[in-house]
Amino acid sequence: MKKLEERILKDGIVRSGNVLKVDSFINHQMDMELFEEMAKEWKRLFAGKPINKILTIEASGIGIAAIVAKEFGVPVVFAKKSMSINLDYDNYCTQIQSFTHGKVYDVIVSRKFLGPEDHVLIIDDFLANGCALLGLLNLVNVAGAVVEGIGVAVEKGFQKGGDMIREKGIQLESLAIVESMDEENGTIIFREQ
Amino acid sequence: MKKLEERILKDGIVRSGNVLKVDSFINHQMDMELFEEMAKEWKRLFAGKPINKILTIEASGIGIAAIVAKEFGVPVVFAKKSMSINLDYDNYCTQIQSFTHGKVYDVIVSRKFLGPEDHVLIIDDFLANGCALLGLLNLVNVAGAVVEGIGVAVEKGFQKGGDMIREKGIQLESLAIVESMDEENGTIIFREQ
Repeated sequence: MKKLEERILKDGIVRSGNVLKVDSFINHQMDMELFEEMAKEWKRLFAGKPINKILTIEASGIGIAAIVAKEFGVPVVFAKKSMSINLDYDNYCTQIQSFTHGKVYDVIVSRKFLGPEDHVLIIDDFLANGCALLGLLNLVNVAGAVVEGIGVAVEKGFQKGGDMIREKGIQLESLAIVESMDEENGTIIFREQ
Repeated sequence: MKKLEERILKDGIVRSGNVLKVDSFINHQMDMELFEEMAKEWKRLFAGKPINKILTIEASGIGIAAIVAKEFGVPVVFAKKSMSINLDYDNYCTQIQSFTHGKVYDVIVSRKFLGPEDHVLIIDDFLANGCALLGLLNLVNVAGAVVEGIGVAVEKGFQKGGDMIREKGIQLESLAIVESMDEENGTIIFREQ
């Protein structure tokens, strides 16, 4: 999506360790006009799919997911992170390794809000190694729901997450795929889509 | 707001310890149609105020704040919780006591996204003892920004948070104020507004 790529070039900041900061418009301060255009693009890309629920994970996915849900006219469910083992039988639970924080989280969704009747579009802000999305896919599978697709704002194409998900045959729509970044001069190269 | 009160009566669940669960439409699964009507109501209640930014705190405030920001045509900034002491000079930091989890959190907002030029509407899903909102007020004060008002979905009127905020002379608009709840028979009484 041209507009997102342009915004990343304008306001994204490349830091050491292949870190791309987009906190001025995506994951700390959030630009609703941009989110609306992203939501419209996903509506186009997933047209015809019987999506009845948006699934995301706290915290930075929630803002985008809310605007997407509004565009699709369906509710959002956000998976909750928990550092404690949750044995509540009312929840589906999976574990996610966070590379950013070097921890393993339990991630839960209430059984009330995900089940075999659901056709789910998963939304998140970032895709790098794919741990968070694989955790969400696992929750959807355990719930017996159907994954209709995954929408990601920014994919780091040089990490393995995107390929792992595409190999599963899931429709993954990343609105910007960063092929490479250069910390020295701040350049960012996107994959042609 | 009648529609929110009716929804709480229909789908809210009263639990022991004065717990009101609204997780099927507000803070786990989120109903975007309801959020839009809430956003329109706050737009009406805060009409004429020079609001240029919505501030909330992760995680469950973000969904509502995103829809409110869209209605107002301004960005959202969400404060981030951190269990570790954050000495980054680029952030404003305050501490919030969580009664739900029995912990003290550091809560941070980047200095880049809050400053003396900002006229802020604070949005959150719940107001009980007021700790989270007082923390956000503190962040806004430290940043030298102006609080134009606070919008809360559900206030527990029998806890002290609402009074503490109103005593500061801040315009607080809670769309539903629960005056009392009865766990035995599940009844909920709202304050007349």
